[in-house]
Amino acid sequence: MPVEGLPEIVVDDDIASMVADRAELVDGDVVLITSKIVSKAEGCAIDLVDIEPSRFAVDWASRWDKDPRLVEVVLCQSARIVRQIGPVLITETHHGFVCANAGVDQSSSGAHERVLVLPEDPDASAVRTRQRFGQLGVDVAVVITDTFGRPWREGQTDVAIGVAGINPLFSYIGERDPHGHEYRVQELCIADELAAAGELVKGNTSRVPVAVVRGYEWTRDDESTMAPVLRDTSRDLFR
Amino acid sequence: MPVEGLPEIVVDDDIASMVADRAELVDGDVVLITSKIVSKAEGCAIDLVDIEPSRFAVDWASRWDKDPRLVEVVLCQSARIVRQIGPVLITETHHGFVCANAGVDQSSSGAHERVLVLPEDPDASAVRTRQRFGQLGVDVAVVITDTFGRPWREGQTDVAIGVAGINPLFSYIGERDPHGHEYRVQELCIADELAAAGELVKGNTSRVPVAVVRGYEWTRDDESTMAPVLRDTSRDLFR
Repeated sequence: MPVEGLPEIVVDDDIASMVADRAELVDGDVVLITSKIVSKAEGCAIDLVDIEPSRFAVDWASRWDKDPRLVEVVLCQSARIVRQIGPVLITETHHGFVCANAGVDQSSSGAHERVLVLPEDPDASAVRTRQRFGQLGVDVAVVITDTFGRPWREGQTDVAIGVAGINPLFSYIGERDPHGHEYRVQELCIADELAAAGELVKGNTSRVPVAVVRGYEWTRDDESTMAPVLRDTSRDLFR
Repeated sequence: MPVEGLPEIVVDDDIASMVADRAELVDGDVVLITSKIVSKAEGCAIDLVDIEPSRFAVDWASRWDKDPRLVEVVLCQSARIVRQIGPVLITETHHGFVCANAGVDQSSSGAHERVLVLPEDPDASAVRTRQRFGQLGVDVAVVITDTFGRPWREGQTDVAIGVAGINPLFSYIGERDPHGHEYRVQELCIADELAAAGELVKGNTSRVPVAVVRGYEWTRDDESTMAPVLRDTSRDLFR
């Protein structure tokens, strides 16, 4: 279900209470929140006028007709560059997400000279939001989402970048199919599947930033984070 | 919604009519069908006893304690090998999908000596199934799904491997956000998002192979295929 009617989010907005006012949440709902509005509420906007681009950023930006200050912000948000080919810059963020331009968003900040960066700690943002929902009387899981591209396939999809209350992975390890074979699929990333499901109602026309999944059975886990989803470099064949 | 109560699928089963008998479908539904049962209905099982493994398959299988006949089947299903590191074999299938073991499934065929390969032409399978639903009086989109891993993130997710009636991509190209900026996200792969949503009800406990998404607005497109989702090698940075 989309959560309609949210106003433009500004710094220090209480997203949980704004959502609770507009959606009749029930215990067990999964609330999917687009990271962009979390960034806005947390003041993750950066004024490009304050940015002094490095020589590396200036050189590369001039070669590909980009704003060197924007490139500098992307570099500052990155732990390392995964691919820099033509005008494309795919980096690993400080959180460990691999995505284009470190998730820096130029289009939605409300001003040409301002860009939005990802929340500093999306798991912590999710926990705070879930706790706030708890204060408002409803026990929900919170998933903070962003829209990422992926190798090999065109079209982006929404994925999870922060979770609270719900384990992002669902494991079949040790279980067997009706024929007695152990499942070939060991673990599903249900956080990403929930994020994808939410995009179907968030994105299509009105760009609604919050969606609710009801009726999905999840096991409450107050310790969960995105950490188990971030594949270790030693297990990764594409970094 | 999961479609419950389907029996074990065998060769020449009419999946559309078996689904229609068990789900009250309405026009506009999206029916998500796990490729495994499509493979079973289409007779895509291969008896390993019939396979004569190549020298390459025998060498590599012995090094990683694999069945050389299974490795041979994976190679035959592959157009090229994308990564062969340790025991992991990630290939590009003849359809153009990049996935582990070319999508060959050893666990679900009902016999240790038999493996299932992906449908030969999943788009054509989807079209036939959609047409059959049409004969049964309901105008639905069909998405054939499989469970793939991905780089950088642990946990698999369901993705689309065949479509009928629905364009797998939803484009924002040329549209602008409320601030007048052109959308940074150009295209969403809604077929993959629908597949992911379906997995949430298919996979969790009972391994239901078919799910239905109702209420998602899609534009009927009888010409659609997965082709626009398959990124051209020239645009791919990870192949």
